[in-house]
Amino acid sequence: MKRETQGSDRRPSLASLSLPLGKRSRLWRLLYGHGPANGTLMVLPLDQGLEHGPTDFFPNPDALDTDFQFNLAIEGKYSAIALGIGLAEKYMADYCGRIPLILKLNGKTNIPSDDEAVSPLSASVEDAVRLGADAVGYTLYVGSPRQDQEILQYQHVRRECERLGMPIVMWAYPRGKAIEEKGGKGTLFAQDYAARVAEEMGADIVKLHEPTEDNDRSPEPYRSLEEDAPARIRRVVRSAGRVMVLFSGGVKQDDDARVLSQVKRYMDCGATGVMFGRNMWLRPFETAVALSREVREIMAGYPR
Amino acid sequence: MKRETQGSDRRPSLASLSLPLGKRSRLWRLLYGHGPANGTLMVLPLDQGLEHGPTDFFPNPDALDTDFQFNLAIEGKYSAIALGIGLAEKYMADYCGRIPLILKLNGKTNIPSDDEAVSPLSASVEDAVRLGADAVGYTLYVGSPRQDQEILQYQHVRRECERLGMPIVMWAYPRGKAIEEKGGKGTLFAQDYAARVAEEMGADIVKLHEPTEDNDRSPEPYRSLEEDAPARIRRVVRSAGRVMVLFSGGVKQDDDARVLSQVKRYMDCGATGVMFGRNMWLRPFETAVALSREVREIMAGYPR
Amino acid sequence: MKRETQGSDRRPSLASLSLPLGKRSRLWRLLYGHGPANGTLMVLPLDQGLEHGPTDFFPNPDALDTDFQFNLAIEGKYSAIALGIGLAEKYMADYCGRIPLILKLNGKTNIPSDDEAVSPLSASVEDAVRLGADAVGYTLYVGSPRQDQEILQYQHVRRECERLGMPIVMWAYPRGKAIEEKGGKGTLFAQDYAARVAEEMGADIVKLHEPTEDNDRSPEPYRSLEEDAPARIRRVVRSAGRVMVLFSGGVKQDDDARVLSQVKRYMDCGATGVMFGRNMWLRPFETAVALSREVREIMAGYPR
Amino acid sequence: MKRETQGSDRRPSLASLSLPLGKRSRLWRLLYGHGPANGTLMVLPLDQGLEHGPTDFFPNPDALDTDFQFNLAIEGKYSAIALGIGLAEKYMADYCGRIPLILKLNGKTNIPSDDEAVSPLSASVEDAVRLGADAVGYTLYVGSPRQDQEILQYQHVRRECERLGMPIVMWAYPRGKAIEEKGGKGTLFAQDYAARVAEEMGADIVKLHEPTEDNDRSPEPYRSLEEDAPARIRRVVRSAGRVMVLFSGGVKQDDDARVLSQVKRYMDCGATGVMFGRNMWLRPFETAVALSREVREIMAGYPR
Amino acid sequence: MKRETQGSDRRPSLASLSLPLGKRSRLWRLLYGHGPANGTLMVLPLDQGLEHGPTDFFPNPDALDTDFQFNLAIEGKYSAIALGIGLAEKYMADYCGRIPLILKLNGKTNIPSDDEAVSPLSASVEDAVRLGADAVGYTLYVGSPRQDQEILQYQHVRRECERLGMPIVMWAYPRGKAIEEKGGKGTLFAQDYAARVAEEMGADIVKLHEPTEDNDRSPEPYRSLEEDAPARIRRVVRSAGRVMVLFSGGVKQDDDARVLSQVKRYMDCGATGVMFGRNMWLRPFETAVALSREVREIMAGYPR
Repeated sequence: MKRETQGSDRRPSLASLSLPLGKRSRLWRLLYGHGPANGTLMVLPLDQGLEHGPTDFFPNPDALDTDFQFNLAIEGKYSAIALGIGLAEKYMADYCGRIPLILKLNGKTNIPSDDEAVSPLSASVEDAVRLGADAVGYTLYVGSPRQDQEILQYQHVRRECERLGMPIVMWAYPRGKAIEEKGGKGTLFAQDYAARVAEEMGADIVKLHEPTEDNDRSPEPYRSLEEDAPARIRRVVRSAGRVMVLFSGGVKQDDDARVLSQVKRYMDCGATGVMFGRNMWLRPFETAVALSREVREIMAGYPR
Repeated sequence: MKRETQGSDRRPSLASLSLPLGKRSRLWRLLYGHGPANGTLMVLPLDQGLEHGPTDFFPNPDALDTDFQFNLAIEGKYSAIALGIGLAEKYMADYCGRIPLILKLNGKTNIPSDDEAVSPLSASVEDAVRLGADAVGYTLYVGSPRQDQEILQYQHVRRECERLGMPIVMWAYPRGKAIEEKGGKGTLFAQDYAARVAEEMGADIVKLHEPTEDNDRSPEPYRSLEEDAPARIRRVVRSAGRVMVLFSGGVKQDDDARVLSQVKRYMDCGATGVMFGRNMWLRPFETAVALSREVREIMAGYPR
Repeated sequence: MKRETQGSDRRPSLASLSLPLGKRSRLWRLLYGHGPANGTLMVLPLDQGLEHGPTDFFPNPDALDTDFQFNLAIEGKYSAIALGIGLAEKYMADYCGRIPLILKLNGKTNIPSDDEAVSPLSASVEDAVRLGADAVGYTLYVGSPRQDQEILQYQHVRRECERLGMPIVMWAYPRGKAIEEKGGKGTLFAQDYAARVAEEMGADIVKLHEPTEDNDRSPEPYRSLEEDAPARIRRVVRSAGRVMVLFSGGVKQDDDARVLSQVKRYMDCGATGVMFGRNMWLRPFETAVALSREVREIMAGYPR
Repeated sequence: MKRETQGSDRRPSLASLSLPLGKRSRLWRLLYGHGPANGTLMVLPLDQGLEHGPTDFFPNPDALDTDFQFNLAIEGKYSAIALGIGLAEKYMADYCGRIPLILKLNGKTNIPSDDEAVSPLSASVEDAVRLGADAVGYTLYVGSPRQDQEILQYQHVRRECERLGMPIVMWAYPRGKAIEEKGGKGTLFAQDYAARVAEEMGADIVKLHEPTEDNDRSPEPYRSLEEDAPARIRRVVRSAGRVMVLFSGGVKQDDDARVLSQVKRYMDCGATGVMFGRNMWLRPFETAVALSREVREIMAGYPR
Repeated sequence: MKRETQGSDRRPSLASLSLPLGKRSRLWRLLYGHGPANGTLMVLPLDQGLEHGPTDFFPNPDALDTDFQFNLAIEGKYSAIALGIGLAEKYMADYCGRIPLILKLNGKTNIPSDDEAVSPLSASVEDAVRLGADAVGYTLYVGSPRQDQEILQYQHVRRECERLGMPIVMWAYPRGKAIEEKGGKGTLFAQDYAARVAEEMGADIVKLHEPTEDNDRSPEPYRSLEEDAPARIRRVVRSAGRVMVLFSGGVKQDDDARVLSQVKRYMDCGATGVMFGRNMWLRPFETAVALSREVREIMAGYPR
């Protein structure tokens, strides 16, 4: 099928995008100045301490010290590290110049229910500029019953980004009781909608999860759709249009080979890169560096 | 009856309206500078990706690429294309000058219930100016239990439009559990009220749906009213007063002839034009261009 | 009783009020520059299209065209016409100079329940200045469960009016489930409280309804009060203190004589004037002009 | 006991307080420039028309005319009159210079339930400056479920007062369903907490009610406390720390002697003064003036 | 185990932190200019009067006079006193220069339920600057269902602190019905999450409670964790990363030896200091001064 073979060609290239100068130069730094430096992206995220609490660090207590992630990002030659204001202000000074920063602007704990999830700002676009960041990260809970609050808050951020030439990486996360009633946050229906929302809202880069099959609660036509994993990935990449797609790694997998085949699958299907956190920093340091190198080698095969 | 024959004469003409210069010159561009260029309007909307998700594109996957709609708008000689900030920023640069832009300022997903619907801003009137738009689009959920929030937000937009000379196209959509209890969003009662609200709120152009018959839940005098479709259309056009009325096409119809007779009916009854999305861009490109040409030929018969 | 005979003397006179210059000169225009021009007021309101929808116009479809009301206000020699931003911007240019404008700043549809009624702003005091209005109209839902929102919003309007020298006409309307539990919005208890709230909140003119008898749900001492209609009217006029009182006409009455005796009763009991909408513009044009002339003749008997 | 005899010594003196100049000079005017002029305070409040409606005036209809209270405040030689923006703007011009003004900034009707009471602003500190007021009055509903809204709003007022040198008289009123569950708004527990909140929030003067005994719903240690009325009063005065305490008179009492013994009890126990409204202005004018003189004579015995 | 012995080494030192100059010099004053003056902290808090009401002072009525705490802070040679705007403005002038001030910016009463706790601002960072404070205190209710409101409000405070060079001491308090369902506010799970949130949110110093064992309602892996008290303390200190940890004293304990062993345990496990209120000021003055001296002697053993 035409669409399937098109997969990896769908990837937007920086050259083809119409962007204001500030955004363009910052994106260039992420795409060509660091990491694989061939138009692909490998981002190391560290927002789990806020989103999930210290629980996530139990498998590798060394990772509780943010120096661990900074060192991994530098030695593993990542495109950028993504974290919030508290960590950025306390650690970035020790590493600046060596690894680009994506300042995550909003977040919350997972203590209360996600039924009506909303992700409040804990930093501003001006903070990002002040800290020398090359992009901001923003979580949008797609389809939350409080989406009006989410979208309004996002609008302010987007306008600040416009004013200051700052690229936006959107964590487009379906969330809340309404999406649960329609099949859950991981389905193709949910991820596909999220991809489109990212484009409609003016994101530059979107972080998505690999979509799972739909189920009985999913709306049509998704419920009846029978597509394999690559077809599903291609579909969401396409729905993201001119927004570059990063796929998340989700919970930690022990099998390195599966992680690498995951990366290859994403890149084959048109992703611009990956944002793997726990699958990297929950490994011992040297192992994580080694795995990062293997990911980077895959990336090398997808220049743009 | 006097009122019926008056139908098409009720259409407001740009010349007769008292408007500030910025609004007047932008409206002139829409009414006389593009499209039928005779005081009628053919607008191609593309807000469905946000409002309904990628679902709407399944019948014609080519339409997922926004280039499809831009090319259709240009080759189909539309008066304008209407879309949101993300699509405008990513695609408009490739087509600017060739097709006027109506920047849709607010929107939401349809994942949560519409019982207390509210449509948050995702762009500003200043964004519209910056992008060279000739009008802004704004959805007002008429009669929503949260109408106070809707109207207040709209007020800020209206004042910005006043300040910047920007015309407002209002998607006046009855919505929410209260309207459902009073007969539903599509009835003459609902559409007639929406038309008047658009005038009371200071819209320049209003997008409505062709009103259906009222039912047992509709309030009097609508419940007992027995009017045929043209009479219903004339009624809402009249309730819109000096606001120009565009009718939407709703879900896709396969029968071209029915689409065309719909257009003719609207124009006969005083509409200023149509805003057909899915009925256009869910057709194969050449078919859609051809149908657009036929619509334009109908329009040619209603100069003003 | 002393209080009863005092009734009509209670009417505040412009000369005796301590007012900033802008308010004074605008009020002078309403009280002495137009209409009866003897210190009384005849206001023609047209906010029903927003508040009740086109329903209200069914008995006289001609009234759907706002030109009808403007012509009636001018030929009927009213003191002012009161309407919202959309109608003011679209029609005022054709009539300016010939009839003073009271710009109604807030309003809502009656589609959702009034249990927790709140009336959002759809225009600003600066809009009123820009449009050359001589006063603003503001609806305050007295005793609504959301009165905190209502009062806060009003406070901003009041301060703008202070800053810009703009008189405030308050539609002081008891509304919401709490007032229903205490006897309903039309009782003397409710109207008397509303009159006092208007004075406490700094209105210049208040629009009230003729109070009905209290009932079993009304609080004491109102529940046990036995007063005739004139005594009830005098009571609310007195509770309004130095705020001028206009009485509304309510739903249309067919009997002209009753309308006129109503006007006489209000003026005898200390009202400054009337704000009759449907009782005027639901009549055929010439009939409405004639009835307006008769009202004006009554007004002539109450100079101040 | 040491604490009991200390009662009246606890009264803060203006000389001992560290205050910015504007606050100090305005407080001097209240404490030494008017009324008893010996460091005690007699304030005549008139916010009942808003808080309770015209109901409160039935026993003395003359009091419906605000001139009554102004004349009483002047002839009764009060320290100040306390009322809201509407009454201040309409009547103050006739009496200015002769009686200091405490502008009450917030208020509400008692039509809806007080379960989640909140008191919205209807005037600003700048209004108070503009009208020449010597203090502002602010109602804080201590312990209301919406205390977050109450405290935030208060914070803005407090900062404006800081900026403009305006003293704050806090009506510290326990209110809402939570305080009802803990014994009610009048208990020592409730009034004692309110007194402390006034100090913690930076009030200059606090208006409290004479605390009643606690009951079975009161929390410990209050529930088990057995103190007589003077001990309870001394306790709340002490909890108010360096905030001057005024006690309210509550509903009207017919027995003058009881009113006077109440005043004496408050002053003996450390109060700075009283704020009696209905107990004054519901009496015939001459009687009210006479009673005021007797109160002032008591005050004369408590110079500071 | 390596981690256990590391405990006390984890303490962040001022020298190693990358801080803007204003923050650095103010923190220096707290850490080296007052109190133990060796890089440890002893803070005397007095926010209980607002948070709990006068109830807390019953065991020692002398403590109702804020002079008591100021004198204790000075004679007990504390690093700082922490209290709200009302107390700071009324008492600080008498003691300024002799004891640093931490201005507590937010707070609430405990009268309504804590199920959806939120702590509103009652003062601003600019107030802190104006009053010469060396830090601000901010309560964040970690995991409250209204965390979005809490975090947004905090963000504004953090940015003001950034702008004005003001250190932030965060009272990181797990609170609300969701944390109760997950084991309660005192567990290691809750305190550990709170410690991490403080770092993620950019606090400079965090106040925590000594964590208790988890229980059946706690999430894994905490539920199954079997660690002794020192291990639990070390864990939360580690989760706080580069944020200095102060432990609170909680309710008053009569046994001095237990208080002192508590202090020693905290310092052994990496705390930077303590913030004991009721355990100090509920003792008779001389006893409290003596106990404070003993605490200071322990502190002397942990220079940094």
